[in-house]
Amino acid sequence: MNGVDEVARAARDASHILAEFPPPTRAGLLLAAAAALDDNAEELVAIGERETGLDTVRLRGELTRTSVQLRLFADTVVAGKFHDARIDEADSDFALGVRPDLRRALLPIGPVLNFAASNFPFAFSVAGGDTASALAAGCAVIVKAHPGHPELSQRTAEIVRRALADAGAPAGTLQLIEGQDEGVAMLMHPLVAAASFTGSLGAGRFLADVAASRPAPIPFYGELGSLNPVVVTAAALAERAEMILTGFAGSVTGSAGQLCTKPGFLFVPAGTDVGPRVGAIVSATREHRLLYPKIADGYAARRATVVSTPGVAVHAAGGVRFDSEGHGWVLPTIVSVSLSTLARERERLLDESFGPLSIVVEYDDTDALVAGFTDLFEGSLTAGLHLGVGETSPWITTIVETMSDVAGRVLFDGWPTGVAVTPAQQHGGPWPATTTSTTTSVGTAAIQRFLRPVAYQNAPASLLPPVLRDDNPWNVEQRRSSAGESRRWGEAAAAQM
Amino acid sequence: MNGVDEVARAARDASHILAEFPPPTRAGLLLAAAAALDDNAEELVAIGERETGLDTVRLRGELTRTSVQLRLFADTVVAGKFHDARIDEADSDFALGVRPDLRRALLPIGPVLNFAASNFPFAFSVAGGDTASALAAGCAVIVKAHPGHPELSQRTAEIVRRALADAGAPAGTLQLIEGQDEGVAMLMHPLVAAASFTGSLGAGRFLADVAASRPAPIPFYGELGSLNPVVVTAAALAERAEMILTGFAGSVTGSAGQLCTKPGFLFVPAGTDVGPRVGAIVSATREHRLLYPKIADGYAARRATVVSTPGVAVHAAGGVRFDSEGHGWVLPTIVSVSLSTLARERERLLDESFGPLSIVVEYDDTDALVAGFTDLFEGSLTAGLHLGVGETSPWITTIVETMSDVAGRVLFDGWPTGVAVTPAQQHGGPWPATTTSTTTSVGTAAIQRFLRPVAYQNAPASLLPPVLRDDNPWNVEQRRSSAGESRRWGEAAAAQM
Repeated sequence: MNGVDEVARAARDASHILAEFPPPTRAGLLLAAAAALDDNAEELVAIGERETGLDTVRLRGELTRTSVQLRLFADTVVAGKFHDARIDEADSDFALGVRPDLRRALLPIGPVLNFAASNFPFAFSVAGGDTASALAAGCAVIVKAHPGHPELSQRTAEIVRRALADAGAPAGTLQLIEGQDEGVAMLMHPLVAAASFTGSLGAGRFLADVAASRPAPIPFYGELGSLNPVVVTAAALAERAEMILTGFAGSVTGSAGQLCTKPGFLFVPAGTDVGPRVGAIVSATREHRLLYPKIADGYAARRATVVSTPGVAVHAAGGVRFDSEGHGWVLPTIVSVSLSTLARERERLLDESFGPLSIVVEYDDTDALVAGFTDLFEGSLTAGLHLGVGETSPWITTIVETMSDVAGRVLFDGWPTGVAVTPAQQHGGPWPATTTSTTTSVGTAAIQRFLRPVAYQNAPASLLPPVLRDDNPWNVEQRRSSAGESRRWGEAAAAQM
Repeated sequence: MNGVDEVARAARDASHILAEFPPPTRAGLLLAAAAALDDNAEELVAIGERETGLDTVRLRGELTRTSVQLRLFADTVVAGKFHDARIDEADSDFALGVRPDLRRALLPIGPVLNFAASNFPFAFSVAGGDTASALAAGCAVIVKAHPGHPELSQRTAEIVRRALADAGAPAGTLQLIEGQDEGVAMLMHPLVAAASFTGSLGAGRFLADVAASRPAPIPFYGELGSLNPVVVTAAALAERAEMILTGFAGSVTGSAGQLCTKPGFLFVPAGTDVGPRVGAIVSATREHRLLYPKIADGYAARRATVVSTPGVAVHAAGGVRFDSEGHGWVLPTIVSVSLSTLARERERLLDESFGPLSIVVEYDDTDALVAGFTDLFEGSLTAGLHLGVGETSPWITTIVETMSDVAGRVLFDGWPTGVAVTPAQQHGGPWPATTTSTTTSVGTAAIQRFLRPVAYQNAPASLLPPVLRDDNPWNVEQRRSSAGESRRWGEAAAAQM
């Protein structure tokens, strides 16, 4: 492995070249990476199974998601809307004195450092969403490999690097580094322009603080963790309890609960038998290995705290069994508490359990639910609500407003796991869900994290970036402000009043 | 004045109401504020003159800029593009399993704290760009008044608050706080969702660190300071030296150099008489009061360091005269150095002088210029280049690329002061020009700092924000991803290769 400085310089050089690649060339890199992943799916999935304990179906699906994501970003590149190109014509009649010719576009920010996640060895790792969106933006990427799947990281990097090189990418377009110290040193390197991270609250906060305390701070996009509360109304439960509880159990136990969108809290009316029924449903779940020993240790400790908290009723005990290699094997844990107990024991209970554990919370009435929900939850990736068919009520409007304030995605009659990769996806949320609530790490808008606006004033056409030239050789959307317009500013608004 | 907690709660309550105002109502608030400023121009300018030492013409122009800016944001509100509304149709044939109905829009982030600047008592103060863009986004604003113009801040707040209230704004839409401790306490308040700042590097870094180290960090948009280097080629100087040097002198001395875009360094070919000629031009400048005593003290110290640095030739000595009230009165200082001296004395010379001082830098050849420029300059709000008519050269392309890397605005044959308020303006740049290089504090894109994306999944129409409803009652631009599309992702890119 090259030294930190050498890697950073190679990324800087590659970024300069990538930024000038026309859209079809840049998109071609993403398509080549997608094809290479598909072509090597069998080998990669086999390594992934061995290193992560995740099963074939899950890993094949995730690899497909990863190549589809690369193709979606390839289309995003050629569509070119993300440049937000704006052209103000020179205006001798401008309301504030003469206006020069001004042109502004979002351009690549420079080398991006991507800290890979453990729980998505494809989709949030070497060639995952952060890498795809940074390459789409025109930035070279340095991936800090997650120690949970080192062989998979190396093999993925080899395969994708070869595909990128064959498609014309400069050396340094995608580089892999390993080790915690190397990751921190790279985050502090002056040539690194932005960083992304998917992982735990503790590690994310540490790295966010490193990024913020650099001599020259840089944007740090951390996706940290989430409680993902879901509320079920009495009407919804009366209509379709079986469907809701089966769906909940599936969402809690899928991938052994090792998903940042796993529903951690299910709010149901008191006096129902939701806890025991979910406990019975998950009893059919087969034992599943957790990703790596450190995750298992953390989950075992967290689970012990939850089940030993006064007022907690255990409906499925589940637990962790450690094998001779230190790997933890889990069965699901389902518990219930009253809303008042949750409020009283918030220090012990209101935390993410990264594994197949969820807490059913019984509320006495909807007033208490709204007040409790507002009091208890801060930033979350998602919040959900299951309603009866056509059910409306002022308290529902109120709790949806609260959910919109604290969550990046508010979902109805469904489960937060299974995040669709599409233009309208939002995977983010206020702290502690993420470090930067104004961005997303899934969906095409993720590209915006790796762009920086630059304006050019009275520039000769030959010195403008292609997206700002009048002949528009990259064929991107350009928005124009015409000369004379400023004299009429405010009229459009006044006309609507 | 109310306590910090009371102010924050009022801002939170107002934000909830403002977020639901339809565009014409929200735009109406901005138009009302603009009209109130215009109607009270005479009184406000008189207070401003007394408190800041800036002259009538400058202050009248700035007040006009401020009301035009409010009107531009009113039009931005009714145009509604900034919501970036995206709708993904439900898709049973989605490439990655069934896709739900997903809708994403940028919504108001919540209460915004705005630290006002000293040097733009209207345009970057109580009713300036940060306030206008936050109100346009639908956020209540708390302004921390700058101590340099307390009476003007209070009177502006009174006038604008009354206009806002008459136009239907809730109490708490615009609140003023005073005092450094109060500002820091407010920045740490949990209900404050984002903050903006215009001021010095030291204060900005301190506040950015406070924002980043909160238990729940929030976005902090600081515009700190800038060196604004300008390069003049031999051809440009041969063609129109008089025009260039007069323009430079005007840009350095306007508002007594107390502008974040003042050109701090002018690079000219060695062996010309640029230093003495500019010195002669500025000798006609009349004495000007600096904004307030602390600025004068800082400027006097900075000037003393510059003129006493070995290798610095002084062409206009200028200086600071303190009056009995502690105010500093200045005449311009123009010095020159060789490029090699600047590199050797970078610790002493490469810093912002917030007043009418600029450094002419003589380069021996363009290779040395390109190397020196790249070595010396980090983030800057602007960088400029004066070229001969039709002049092109590989070194020019290279230095423009370097300027694009380090500056938010690259300008040709002009001067960085006089920042036009228009859709394509970019007022920002990499650290230390700003804390957040991905944003702007001038121009319509400034609204994006105060928005947060939220997605809704399978939401009933009655619980969707208006901008995401199919009947589109606010008439905003909505982008749709149709069912079936995902099967063709990558084809648009492949077709262009």
